[in-house]
Amino acid sequence: MAANLFYAQSGGVTAVINTTACGVIQAAREHGDVIGKVFAGRNGILGALHEDLIDTSLESDAAIAALRHTPGGAFGSCRYKLKGLEESRAQYERLIEVFRAHDIRWFLYNGGNDSMDTAWKVSQIAEKLHYPLTCVGIPKTVDNDLVETDNCPGFGSVAKYVAVSMMEAGLDVASMARTSTKIFVMEVMGRHAGWITAAAGLAARTPAEAPHILLFPEIPFDEAAFLARVDACVREHDFCAIAVSEGLRGSDGRLLAESGTRDAFGHAQLGGVGQQIAELIKTKLGHKYHWALPDYLQRSGRHIASGTDAQQAYALGRRAVELAIEGRNAVMPAIVRLSDTPYAWKIDVAQLQDVANREKMMPRHFISDDGFGITDACRKYLQPLIEGEDYPPYVNGLPAYVSLKNESVPRTLPPFAG
Amino acid sequence: MAANLFYAQSGGVTAVINTTACGVIQAAREHGDVIGKVFAGRNGILGALHEDLIDTSLESDAAIAALRHTPGGAFGSCRYKLKGLEESRAQYERLIEVFRAHDIRWFLYNGGNDSMDTAWKVSQIAEKLHYPLTCVGIPKTVDNDLVETDNCPGFGSVAKYVAVSMMEAGLDVASMARTSTKIFVMEVMGRHAGWITAAAGLAARTPAEAPHILLFPEIPFDEAAFLARVDACVREHDFCAIAVSEGLRGSDGRLLAESGTRDAFGHAQLGGVGQQIAELIKTKLGHKYHWALPDYLQRSGRHIASGTDAQQAYALGRRAVELAIEGRNAVMPAIVRLSDTPYAWKIDVAQLQDVANREKMMPRHFISDDGFGITDACRKYLQPLIEGEDYPPYVNGLPAYVSLKNESVPRTLPPFAG
Repeated sequence: MAANLFYAQSGGVTAVINTTACGVIQAAREHGDVIGKVFAGRNGILGALHEDLIDTSLESDAAIAALRHTPGGAFGSCRYKLKGLEESRAQYERLIEVFRAHDIRWFLYNGGNDSMDTAWKVSQIAEKLHYPLTCVGIPKTVDNDLVETDNCPGFGSVAKYVAVSMMEAGLDVASMARTSTKIFVMEVMGRHAGWITAAAGLAARTPAEAPHILLFPEIPFDEAAFLARVDACVREHDFCAIAVSEGLRGSDGRLLAESGTRDAFGHAQLGGVGQQIAELIKTKLGHKYHWALPDYLQRSGRHIASGTDAQQAYALGRRAVELAIEGRNAVMPAIVRLSDTPYAWKIDVAQLQDVANREKMMPRHFISDDGFGITDACRKYLQPLIEGEDYPPYVNGLPAYVSLKNESVPRTLPPFAG
Repeated sequence: MAANLFYAQSGGVTAVINTTACGVIQAAREHGDVIGKVFAGRNGILGALHEDLIDTSLESDAAIAALRHTPGGAFGSCRYKLKGLEESRAQYERLIEVFRAHDIRWFLYNGGNDSMDTAWKVSQIAEKLHYPLTCVGIPKTVDNDLVETDNCPGFGSVAKYVAVSMMEAGLDVASMARTSTKIFVMEVMGRHAGWITAAAGLAARTPAEAPHILLFPEIPFDEAAFLARVDACVREHDFCAIAVSEGLRGSDGRLLAESGTRDAFGHAQLGGVGQQIAELIKTKLGHKYHWALPDYLQRSGRHIASGTDAQQAYALGRRAVELAIEGRNAVMPAIVRLSDTPYAWKIDVAQLQDVANREKMMPRHFISDDGFGITDACRKYLQPLIEGEDYPPYVNGLPAYVSLKNESVPRTLPPFAG
């Protein structure tokens, strides 16, 4: 009888992580001769640890197809990192125990660099314990910071979201600037790498258009240079639009968002570097501002997903299943760029060990010399990633996102105490 | 020779105010026998006061057609309210002087209740000065608070934006809730009336779905009842999603977000109540939160505009021109609902005097007894307003929004000092 495949989602979810799940499950169903059932971990790796498995075979083909256009993590995700193999040996052994109990021979883990590390360690422990398991990581992160792949599924859609949003808000503030708001600040995700901040820059086709200034986590904040730039921008264009990374740091290396500023009530100012920047402008230059914090909206905005991103997320899910069937252990399907214009790509295979725990920062030559914008090289890289629209179907004016039944596989083991 | 028509945009812009402008200009072009040129006020009424007129006849038909899908205010808007007729007599007289200098016989003013008041006063002064001017107001406001019309252009699109965004962010936080974020708060616009807050409620088709709690400006904030509700929600659904109006008030009637600053109309400058609510939950119940402030993104989100809204905005622009030609003075084309399901509507004519300076609040029976949700009656009212998608065309992954040339009509008068 065919053995089973385990799939789980890890870390912050994206607009297209379910698109990958769709690719995985559809490909597995097409290989029913080899793969029995796809069991999804409820809340990521926790589902495996606690034998909390979802039987996806109970979902209809239509429901699985609808995953392709549904944001969020359909089986639940988790922020939970397994430690080193020796340190957390009991946990790794438990995973193998659960896999053995449910005849799981393939482990597909959909996440970022932490998750690639976990997948790699699981492959190691399986080998040590002589349990026949093929481990495949599937890339996913809005931060676009995985190495060994042209880009990461999830990023293209958040990139499109922030570029479109900045373009739209820029038109809004431009029309209000004469008598009201002159400054617009949008705070975007990306704690360490400035890819999302850079993507906002795609909205400006000319220097007059929003955004006028980008504040990257890679470039220490220079208050004087920044204010001079804002002032010049307002004088020239009558308004100034800024995208700022949540991970902006001062010259002391500290996050501005944690710099100890306090509000009127004496509360620490949390997660509001966008407002801090806007308040700074108001205090020093006197301009009225608006600021936006799209937060989860940017990474779950499936309604404005990038066509490129959706295609790649789906294709990587399918390819992961093929790699699993081929017995390619400890690998990750990765995107290779063949050309920028027209954009052409293929899927190649990276080693999990090369991907695990590494971060891909923006190269310095993608950021303009003054540190406040993106270069043509950066534009050339980003442009194809936001191309194409991949609209979900709508019913009654709202996207027809699917909710799965998510029925549990009966447990056979005692609870895990570890 | 045909006389000219003046059109201006006022107050906060919307995703579809240019859709109305498109209807106005296209209809005027079709009536070239009667209407010479459409002159747009640069930055709203200021353009008229300062004889800063834009000659829209220099824009191509294609550019005008593209206005239909372009957010922001193409000619610039303003927050500038004319005072009483006697108090600001010089300004009103100046308007007539400018209109006379440029042979403007029709005054179309696209805005909210303040603007309808201005349009009404302009009609009064023209009459007093025996200047032949037909004044037509065209409704526009994301706040949906104009009386005498089923709804206001701009509202349906922001309603769709907040409902879609809440649905998407709700799926995101639901998948993260097991080990991370349990609370999601989205702060929405709507200073006095809770229409936008109510619209977020459309995202929840079942009690398990986001949003679980709505905080309306019409309902004084009851901290204890709110926290009990959040607690129960997290216990039952493992997460809690909340939409809160920027205009939420305490039982003392004061804005929770009151910061002391005021805009040009003397309205309090809001922002940040979303974070206050989220911090309150963290402090009292200990849950990790995320919060979002879509700000301008919600009212400029043309990429997710409501089909109903775009149709109505366009139709009202066209109808305003017809009313102008018919010499219907001091009126506003208004939407009349003929049926809910299927939604049917027509355009009727309201008197500016009946619309000016009045605000339409949410009726109490649209809000659930506990004050935290919407009723079926409210759903029935809101549902058709978000129906239909009206996507802009895209080029290179971004909406193909138009920038007009906006060339000035040569001035003939001395500058206005008033």
